[in-house]
Amino acid sequence: MSRILTVAAAQLGPIQKAETRAEVVARMIALMEEAKAKRADFIVYPELALTTFFPRWYHEDRAEADPWFEAAMPNPQVQPLFDKALECGMGMSFGYAELTPEGQHFNSSILVDKTGAIVGKYRKIHLPGHVDYDETRAHQHLEKRYFEPGDLGFPVWRTMGGLIGMCICNDRRWPETYRVMGLQGVEMVVLGFNTPSVNGHRSGEGLAQRLFHHRLSVQAGAYQNSCWVVAVAKAGDEDGNHLMGGTLVVNPDGEIVAELEGEADGIIVVPCDLDATRFGKETIFDFARHRRIEHYGAITAQVGVVEPD
Amino acid sequence: MSRILTVAAAQLGPIQKAETRAEVVARMIALMEEAKAKRADFIVYPELALTTFFPRWYHEDRAEADPWFEAAMPNPQVQPLFDKALECGMGMSFGYAELTPEGQHFNSSILVDKTGAIVGKYRKIHLPGHVDYDETRAHQHLEKRYFEPGDLGFPVWRTMGGLIGMCICNDRRWPETYRVMGLQGVEMVVLGFNTPSVNGHRSGEGLAQRLFHHRLSVQAGAYQNSCWVVAVAKAGDEDGNHLMGGTLVVNPDGEIVAELEGEADGIIVVPCDLDATRFGKETIFDFARHRRIEHYGAITAQVGVVEPD
Repeated sequence: MSRILTVAAAQLGPIQKAETRAEVVARMIALMEEAKAKRADFIVYPELALTTFFPRWYHEDRAEADPWFEAAMPNPQVQPLFDKALECGMGMSFGYAELTPEGQHFNSSILVDKTGAIVGKYRKIHLPGHVDYDETRAHQHLEKRYFEPGDLGFPVWRTMGGLIGMCICNDRRWPETYRVMGLQGVEMVVLGFNTPSVNGHRSGEGLAQRLFHHRLSVQAGAYQNSCWVVAVAKAGDEDGNHLMGGTLVVNPDGEIVAELEGEADGIIVVPCDLDATRFGKETIFDFARHRRIEHYGAITAQVGVVEPD
Repeated sequence: MSRILTVAAAQLGPIQKAETRAEVVARMIALMEEAKAKRADFIVYPELALTTFFPRWYHEDRAEADPWFEAAMPNPQVQPLFDKALECGMGMSFGYAELTPEGQHFNSSILVDKTGAIVGKYRKIHLPGHVDYDETRAHQHLEKRYFEPGDLGFPVWRTMGGLIGMCICNDRRWPETYRVMGLQGVEMVVLGFNTPSVNGHRSGEGLAQRLFHHRLSVQAGAYQNSCWVVAVAKAGDEDGNHLMGGTLVVNPDGEIVAELEGEADGIIVVPCDLDATRFGKETIFDFARHRRIEHYGAITAQVGVVEPD
C-alpha cells in the first residue's frame, strides 16, 4: 500500500524589517507556483513567515511590537496567498504572529486544506529566550516577552488523506512535542523555524553545531514516533542578524530524504508515503505494547529538575 | 569548573552458549585491568554481560531458561570481578538476568561504587520482542517471554561525584527514559545493549540502519537532557546470530566523542566533565523555565495511540 502526500518545503530567505507583507506574500506565491509545477499537494512555509524575525528587537513598550502581528487570518494582505492556494488546489501551512480579539499574543501557525479552509491552528508552546533585555547575550531573543505560551496543546488533524500535526521552531527540540502527536497517530509533523546561526550565550556554538542539533532533534522525533517531519527555515541575513537554513524532510525511519541548499527562497518537493509510517508504528514503536506509563509520572508531574538526596 | 569522571566503555565480543560465567568474568577482568591502566574511575559493561543473549532461544517451558539467571548478586562466579574492582578502586556497572527470591525474572543492571557497594539497581522497563514463538520473524526475540517489565522506575544515584542513571538496550529508543532521569538532573546515563544486526521483521534493515537508529536515539537523549551517555555493546557472532557493535560515548551536546571499532572485547576510555552538563541544563534545556507540562498529559494518561475523529 502507499498513500502519497507530495509536500513542498518552502524556505524563505531573509525578510528585512522594511519589507512589506505584500512583498513577502508575492515571494510565497512564487514558491507556490513552483510547487504546483512540481505537483505538490501541500506547501509548508516557515515560522513567522510574513515578517522579519522581530523578537530580536527590544521594545520597552511591548505594544510597539503589535504592528508585526495579524489581527485576523486571512486578512487583506494575505488573501492573495489563500486565493492562489485555492486556484492551485493545494493545502498549505505557515506561521505568523497572532493578535487575538482579546488582546492575546501568540506565535501561531495554521493548516489550510485544499478547499482553502483553515482546518487547524497551533500556538507555539515552547517559547525560547527571555522576557527582559539581556545584556549578557550576543543578540536578543525576546519570544517570552512578546508571546504567551500556546494554549491549544498539540492537536493532530485528519486532513489531506492523513493525520497531520504542527509545531514551531524550538518545539522541535522537545521530545514531548512529537510524543503527544505520536499518541494521536500523527503521520506528518510540519514545522517552521527561525534559528539564529550562533548561540547567543556561547559564541563558539556556531552554524555547524546548530544545524547538527536541529537535524538530531527532528530526526529523533520522526524515528521515535514513526512519522514524516517537514522542517522549513527562514534563512539568511535579516538586517545584520543571520538565521541558519536547514530546510529538510525526514522519513519515518529518521532519515533525511531531502535537504535544501543555501539561504534563499526555494523549495524541495518530496512525495511522502504516509503508509510508510505503519511499519514502525506496528513494531518497535507499537506504543500500546511497549510503553510503560507507570514509570513516566515525573514527565507530567513536575516542570523542573528535582535532584535525588 | 570541571568535575572529571573517567569512564571506560567495555564492549564484550560474542559469548557463545557453551561459555561459562567464569570464562566471561575472566574477560571482564582483563578489560578492567586495561581500564585501570588507562586511569578509568568507572567501567561500564553491556546488558546481560555474563551470558550469551539467551532470549533468542525459545523454550516452551520458561523454567528451562532459569540457568541463564543469577539468583544472587554478587555470587561466587562473579565475586572475582567485584574483588578486582575493589582492588582497582573502580566503580562499575553491568547487566545480568536477575531471578529474585520470589521467583520474578528481570533484565537488570547494577551500579557499584568504588568501595564495592552496590548503590543502584535498575530493571529494564521497555522490553522489546514478543512472548510466544513467532514464525514470521527471521529470529526470535523473546524478552517479553522471559522477563517481567522493570518495577523500579528510572532512578538516578548520587555517586562517584555525579548524578548517574542506568537504562538497558531498547530503553534507549524511548525519550521518556532519558527525560525521567533528566528531571532528576542526571549527568551520565550508562546503558548496555545486545542488538541484532538485522531487524527480524524486515531483512532490508541491516547493520548500517540499525547503527544509525542506535546513534540517533542515544545522541538525542544526551542532547535533550544535556547529559553524558555511555552506551556499551555486546557484539559479534553468538552461535550464528550476529549482534551489532556501536559502543560509544556521547557528550551533553549530543556529539559522539569516542566510538569503538570492531566487535571484539575492547574499551574506550573518556574523561567526562560532569560540569559540561551545566550549560545545556541552564539555558535551552532549563526545564523549569521552558517545559509546559499542562500540554503533556497524554504522555502519562494513555499507553497507546488514540487517533482523532
